[in-house]
Amino acid sequence: MSSQTAKRVAVVLGLGKGTGTGASTARLFAKSGYEVALISRGGDHLENLGKDIKSNGGNAKTFPLASYSHEDVINAWAAVHKAFPKPEYVVRVAVFNGGWGAFKKFLDVTPEDVQTALQASVAAAFSFARGAILAFKDNDIDESNGKRGALIFTGATASTRGNVITSCFAAGKHGLRALSQSLGKEFGKENIHVAHSIIDGAVLFDTTWKTTDRVGLTPDSIAASYLYLVNQDKSAWTWELDLRPAHEKW
Amino acid sequence: MSSQTAKRVAVVLGLGKGTGTGASTARLFAKSGYEVALISRGGDHLENLGKDIKSNGGNAKTFPLASYSHEDVINAWAAVHKAFPKPEYVVRVAVFNGGWGAFKKFLDVTPEDVQTALQASVAAAFSFARGAILAFKDNDIDESNGKRGALIFTGATASTRGNVITSCFAAGKHGLRALSQSLGKEFGKENIHVAHSIIDGAVLFDTTWKTTDRVGLTPDSIAASYLYLVNQDKSAWTWELDLRPAHEKW
Amino acid sequence: MSSQTAKRVAVVLGLGKGTGTGASTARLFAKSGYEVALISRGGDHLENLGKDIKSNGGNAKTFPLASYSHEDVINAWAAVHKAFPKPEYVVRVAVFNGGWGAFKKFLDVTPEDVQTALQASVAAAFSFARGAILAFKDNDIDESNGKRGALIFTGATASTRGNVITSCFAAGKHGLRALSQSLGKEFGKENIHVAHSIIDGAVLFDTTWKTTDRVGLTPDSIAASYLYLVNQDKSAWTWELDLRPAHEKW
Amino acid sequence: MSSQTAKRVAVVLGLGKGTGTGASTARLFAKSGYEVALISRGGDHLENLGKDIKSNGGNAKTFPLASYSHEDVINAWAAVHKAFPKPEYVVRVAVFNGGWGAFKKFLDVTPEDVQTALQASVAAAFSFARGAILAFKDNDIDESNGKRGALIFTGATASTRGNVITSCFAAGKHGLRALSQSLGKEFGKENIHVAHSIIDGAVLFDTTWKTTDRVGLTPDSIAASYLYLVNQDKSAWTWELDLRPAHEKW
Repeated sequence: MSSQTAKRVAVVLGLGKGTGTGASTARLFAKSGYEVALISRGGDHLENLGKDIKSNGGNAKTFPLASYSHEDVINAWAAVHKAFPKPEYVVRVAVFNGGWGAFKKFLDVTPEDVQTALQASVAAAFSFARGAILAFKDNDIDESNGKRGALIFTGATASTRGNVITSCFAAGKHGLRALSQSLGKEFGKENIHVAHSIIDGAVLFDTTWKTTDRVGLTPDSIAASYLYLVNQDKSAWTWELDLRPAHEKW
Repeated sequence: MSSQTAKRVAVVLGLGKGTGTGASTARLFAKSGYEVALISRGGDHLENLGKDIKSNGGNAKTFPLASYSHEDVINAWAAVHKAFPKPEYVVRVAVFNGGWGAFKKFLDVTPEDVQTALQASVAAAFSFARGAILAFKDNDIDESNGKRGALIFTGATASTRGNVITSCFAAGKHGLRALSQSLGKEFGKENIHVAHSIIDGAVLFDTTWKTTDRVGLTPDSIAASYLYLVNQDKSAWTWELDLRPAHEKW
Repeated sequence: MSSQTAKRVAVVLGLGKGTGTGASTARLFAKSGYEVALISRGGDHLENLGKDIKSNGGNAKTFPLASYSHEDVINAWAAVHKAFPKPEYVVRVAVFNGGWGAFKKFLDVTPEDVQTALQASVAAAFSFARGAILAFKDNDIDESNGKRGALIFTGATASTRGNVITSCFAAGKHGLRALSQSLGKEFGKENIHVAHSIIDGAVLFDTTWKTTDRVGLTPDSIAASYLYLVNQDKSAWTWELDLRPAHEKW
Repeated sequence: MSSQTAKRVAVVLGLGKGTGTGASTARLFAKSGYEVALISRGGDHLENLGKDIKSNGGNAKTFPLASYSHEDVINAWAAVHKAFPKPEYVVRVAVFNGGWGAFKKFLDVTPEDVQTALQASVAAAFSFARGAILAFKDNDIDESNGKRGALIFTGATASTRGNVITSCFAAGKHGLRALSQSLGKEFGKENIHVAHSIIDGAVLFDTTWKTTDRVGLTPDSIAASYLYLVNQDKSAWTWELDLRPAHEKW
């Protein structure tokens, strides 16, 4: 079986309650012909998302994450490879949708807040990226887009701007952005695509926006941009794009 | 005839020799169901492009531009509206692909170079944007993407970075970027989408890259990103994305 | 007479009504031992400023500017050199404090607004910079700071951010910033220092702030930063710094 | 004793081998009338620097740091306050010159490298900033510059740009920058000045540059900019400035 006919796998880390960016991304890639590997600390939410994708005709497997430690993240990658072994499967997409940060005035930020934010938003991203890059380097080039694989990081307004109550969140998101740019520069020449989104607005985790005038980004729309990034051909691909609602004040 | 069933028109300013970003954008929108209005200073190149699009089944009309003056650009818009009258047609897309700048050491830059760059890259963009915004404000919302219209500006590496021989080019491209951001902030709430690309690499105007190892962006790939931007729904749309070849050093 | 003992001249373009950044800069350099050449379109304001500096013990000469055209700006430089001839004088500092931009909603911006903004903020800066660079290249290195000369441009919030009513102003200020960065990169190796300030707040043109709670930058404080930039040694000099009031919301 | 006549203390964290930015900053503030509190992991280097400053007429006390942990950094602050008690002393300046990052290709970066970089460059900066802000909030305003205190962070090229071998270093430096901007926005209105430098070039830790053509920033020149930042009045102060050698390619 050639790598071109192997089943493509998309690995998504960070699914929250199964209603946000990660979940929509997983659903969209499942609908688009990818097997999806779901890594999250979510417990029931994670299992429910996996079942839901399968009940909609997708193929999903879940990989509960005990913590954002390097060991746990790397072990999750090992489990993914075991569940989706070569040559039948080939991991082509990895999405890091993790991260966390306290929204607090600076003097209310605790040392634990800082540690948690840096671990969840930066260190775990290094670990996840390691798994993704190692997987991609082992791939042939996908003839459909010219890439060995695509690695996408979810950023935020705080990725490029610190603000009064975002010292902790912004520190993590800035660090994540630096990682993504460094990876983009290092691995582009190996035909590995690294991209970073800046989600500049509130994500609409439920559907109340349909009947109110709330302004925000639907997770499905964000997911659509991730699928687009993966499909960009390598003659003109994007490291960074911003995404915001039409009616956002910015 | 409702605006939803009217024929969509895409207006592209800046076609060069008919082998670059503007031309590929026009061809792609023509293939995607748009009528295309081609505005350029190109003379024969412009006419040839129009003929070529038509021979491939598209509907293109050409509007030669004598200069980048406000009057000429506004007159071109008037001619476009006359050629594609409401309610049969509705202008939904406008792409500003104009601009110019000398690549010279600073002391070799002439006052004429400066004037030409500012006129072609900034003043003409104000004029073109005026035509586009006025056209879009008069539109209903397109049910397919939630927008009255989409206005895209082509930027470059020099849009965010001045360098040794780019004082003139970068001044114009920075100005253009400022305009696009201002428009994005002002008209988003009216469901008009304004976007800006940063073309961070050499555009491959011919096809020698197919048989050599030249690194660059194909115009078709850039055009694909413009079509994507137009199709983004308004819950999560992009003001700015960068585009570069996988193997670019950056 | 060696260039080290020649009298240092600071040339300031853009004096407004004699109460803002340019005027404070001129006064401070006059107090700090520079002869000052004042170039402005100010008429009476310009003459009054010149008289005032002289009555305070400084040496100032005024050079009325009929317009921001290349010819007028270059002629002003010629007049400065005639009034402050080598070897008795040496031009060591040039400050471009010109520029203009309409603060209007986009559709209210006229083609004349655009032309005026681009001419005053960008084209005139190219002309002024040409005069400064040519003057500096002809200098020996000043032993006090290791430079042939220093060229400073006054920027604004709009230098890095377009906004709803700043399309015109921001286009000019972005262009100016691009010029300053290009010059910094090209001429640093020739020991010519080019710097750019970002004035991120309202400048207090009168003294009502002394008795009210208005928040803003005093022109004297901005001027102090320009003197600092000139005095930075060439081992660690600054291209860009932001300046804002302590109580500014940003 | 009023806070205006109390002896001003400058606290500097991060002294390395006593030959870099931190050491020059400590020496300069000591010469400029400040008592200096030196916090570092340096051992002998730290003690030697303290002795050297004292032998040059300054008043320095050393506070060895066992690690960059929150507890150790906060304990160092407690020791500083004990050694420089109110009302005789008042801490007016705090400089965070710590940080670390591996310069390695991404796949050579270890999990320990990541943890160390995030702890030394970001978490320790949060801890140090907490000590500084708490100290400053307890101060009256210094009549000489209108501030309760000034907190300066040392950044680098990697603060705004990730690159091929800087994923680890840039992640930490980006995080530090985000912290500094957040603090600047939160505490400006309380007359606490937070600034961030971008050291865009190699720091010359020894004096071989005096006899060679090495290009770099002398620590003394960087220190001079820090003293300038502290002395800026609050009508126009700087959050961020870049510093680079005249002959740097950038």
